[in-house]
Amino acid sequence: MSVIVQKFGGTSVGSPASIKRMASRVMEEKNRGNDVVAVVSAMGDTTDTLTTLANDVSSQPAKREMDMLLSTGEQVTTALLAMALQEKGAESISFTGGQAGILTDSVHGNAKIRTINPEPIMKELRTGKIVVVAGFQGITEEGSISTLGRGGSDTTAAALAAKLGAERCDIFTDVDGVYTSDPGYIKKAAKISSLTYDDMLNLAARGAGVLHPRSVKHAKKYGIPMVVRSSLTKEKGTFINFSSKRSDRYPVIGIVFQQDRTRISLCGMTDCEKTKSAITSVLQTRNIECDFFKEQSRNELTLLLHQNELKESLELLLEMKEQLKFDQFTTQEDLAKVAVIGSNIRTHPVIQGKAAKALTAGRIEFSLVEDSPVSVTAAVKHGDMHRAAELLHTSFGLDIPEMRKVAAVR
Amino acid sequence: MSVIVQKFGGTSVGSPASIKRMASRVMEEKNRGNDVVAVVSAMGDTTDTLTTLANDVSSQPAKREMDMLLSTGEQVTTALLAMALQEKGAESISFTGGQAGILTDSVHGNAKIRTINPEPIMKELRTGKIVVVAGFQGITEEGSISTLGRGGSDTTAAALAAKLGAERCDIFTDVDGVYTSDPGYIKKAAKISSLTYDDMLNLAARGAGVLHPRSVKHAKKYGIPMVVRSSLTKEKGTFINFSSKRSDRYPVIGIVFQQDRTRISLCGMTDCEKTKSAITSVLQTRNIECDFFKEQSRNELTLLLHQNELKESLELLLEMKEQLKFDQFTTQEDLAKVAVIGSNIRTHPVIQGKAAKALTAGRIEFSLVEDSPVSVTAAVKHGDMHRAAELLHTSFGLDIPEMRKVAAVR
Repeated sequence: MSVIVQKFGGTSVGSPASIKRMASRVMEEKNRGNDVVAVVSAMGDTTDTLTTLANDVSSQPAKREMDMLLSTGEQVTTALLAMALQEKGAESISFTGGQAGILTDSVHGNAKIRTINPEPIMKELRTGKIVVVAGFQGITEEGSISTLGRGGSDTTAAALAAKLGAERCDIFTDVDGVYTSDPGYIKKAAKISSLTYDDMLNLAARGAGVLHPRSVKHAKKYGIPMVVRSSLTKEKGTFINFSSKRSDRYPVIGIVFQQDRTRISLCGMTDCEKTKSAITSVLQTRNIECDFFKEQSRNELTLLLHQNELKESLELLLEMKEQLKFDQFTTQEDLAKVAVIGSNIRTHPVIQGKAAKALTAGRIEFSLVEDSPVSVTAAVKHGDMHRAAELLHTSFGLDIPEMRKVAAVR
Repeated sequence: MSVIVQKFGGTSVGSPASIKRMASRVMEEKNRGNDVVAVVSAMGDTTDTLTTLANDVSSQPAKREMDMLLSTGEQVTTALLAMALQEKGAESISFTGGQAGILTDSVHGNAKIRTINPEPIMKELRTGKIVVVAGFQGITEEGSISTLGRGGSDTTAAALAAKLGAERCDIFTDVDGVYTSDPGYIKKAAKISSLTYDDMLNLAARGAGVLHPRSVKHAKKYGIPMVVRSSLTKEKGTFINFSSKRSDRYPVIGIVFQQDRTRISLCGMTDCEKTKSAITSVLQTRNIECDFFKEQSRNELTLLLHQNELKESLELLLEMKEQLKFDQFTTQEDLAKVAVIGSNIRTHPVIQGKAAKALTAGRIEFSLVEDSPVSVTAAVKHGDMHRAAELLHTSFGLDIPEMRKVAAVR
């Protein structure tokens, strides 16, 4: 018998009705003769509600306690899904991350999985039970509850699939696959039928919210095929594996964007490269991600990071002012990041120029950085984000053809 | 340094504001130089909300999964209280029941504490931390989450107090002490300043919701003084210990009542006593509590039990029909139980007669049973419950004197 891991997130677990629907999807797979492990997220806006409570009692809630608080969201869903499955006549058992044998490091709020003991789950699968596991969470060596940070449930699913030698890892969500851009905002975004792990990784790492990079890494490392699909329809979804049907001729896969960015610009350094690597290593210790914009002519170094991490980052930089050798800094809030993603953009040098041209033609103010071999990123004003993404989407020939669009609407 | 265990339940944990207030009460005790362990219940109507969700996805949710679900309620409160304490400058850590070392049997939904490993809590107390523990829950030997059933948070508090050798166990609730009857319904109910464990046990075992009998048993066994007090006021509360200031001359302590009772009457047995003990032992295996009314002249045996347990109990009785040797049964729903509680009622035979006289004078239909040495219980119609309790309260001289009542109102 094969093990199939199914992950349910987003609106697929929003209400009792959707939990029953989720149970039906699990039963379909079980009735095909497979062993099923279901990984679930918190219901609807539970996480937001809990975060509001935390902010009501504390100005800066400790991360260990936030994990203790937020992990209850997934726990509620596991119990409800197990009940719904039992109601349909299946045998089922729910597990917290810790009960499922998921051991993490102690970086509360953004923990990484260290090891998984597959025995607790395997033991239940052997007796024919469907195992429901709380996504997004694990347990530290000290026995505290930890959470895996954003997209953590995907990571749980992929890591379990790898550990259990699953045949497939299905990611059920509120969209029916991976698109060339977010179809909620970019009307001409097209569904991608198959993608390589690397392409998916590039999209995810630059902000495509549909999957978390860590989950794709786990799946790639152990060669577990992933399918991103809708929990509402029976559409085929996007298949992710080592090879894809895409032509390699045209390098651009999609356009991703992220809001709530802040810019910090430092100036007066003598050696920008040295300062950059010092900053990179200190931010990494705090799990803060940033993009760098470097304009060497002016001895200026610009960081683009999430608004929520501005305060902590500035504190860190000011503590290290001597070492980093900068004179002054400026910040700018309410920015957004728009990125052109492709397998090997660096070998196609025209892409940066083409992106700049498209944005200029649309009268969008931007600064542009080629931050990696697989992306060209522009920082734009928050209000320009969606239009910038649309312009780039069209400019790189990603728009869904009119004919297909009409068909899709019907 | 002494350890003080403080338990917060009911409306004392209803909102972020009340959690902050609770944090202040904990800090007061900590600032007196004591080590504090706070045991908390779920916030407000969390348990009801979660139960509704369960009933939305399942007609008969498995008890293990209900425990998985409901235990999140207390876990949320622990995290929030720990955050609120940290906000006030204290060091604090939250624990689930399992993390606090509370091992229970596997009777999900009504588990009993088997052992407590005090080390996890002691380790944190030694570093000066305030430890916040989720009440009502523990972990089974198999590692599943269990809940202790009704009043479980009181039991957690008393059991921890016993295990940690606490100097005192404070039970903060929405009333300012133990009353001669429920002051929410019986206007002339009087606060009792001190009670013996046995008196408290008798009140609690017969339905005084303010404390659960198990918690009082734990406190008595290890001689831990308990104080029932309000989380809203600084009133003195009710002190519970081996001796009390009450005069032993007059045996009646209070009047308790419970609604949602159902009667099952069996008839046609040859040996009522034998049938009774057979029923008692089978109901005990399912943790179903009941009172017996026996009218030997008619070879009839009447059980009074909670409405929710009618179905399960009837099924059990019918399975055992041969063995129990009854011919027929009748049931009656929408009943209530009103009981006169006293230390040693059996040695005061007039009490049963006096109770009957008071109810008859009030034209209340009832059946009466002297079911123990410490209580006289009447089954009445649901709608008569409060009036029956008031009549008995007055009749046994428990009403608060008019003068004191006026003072209390002011």
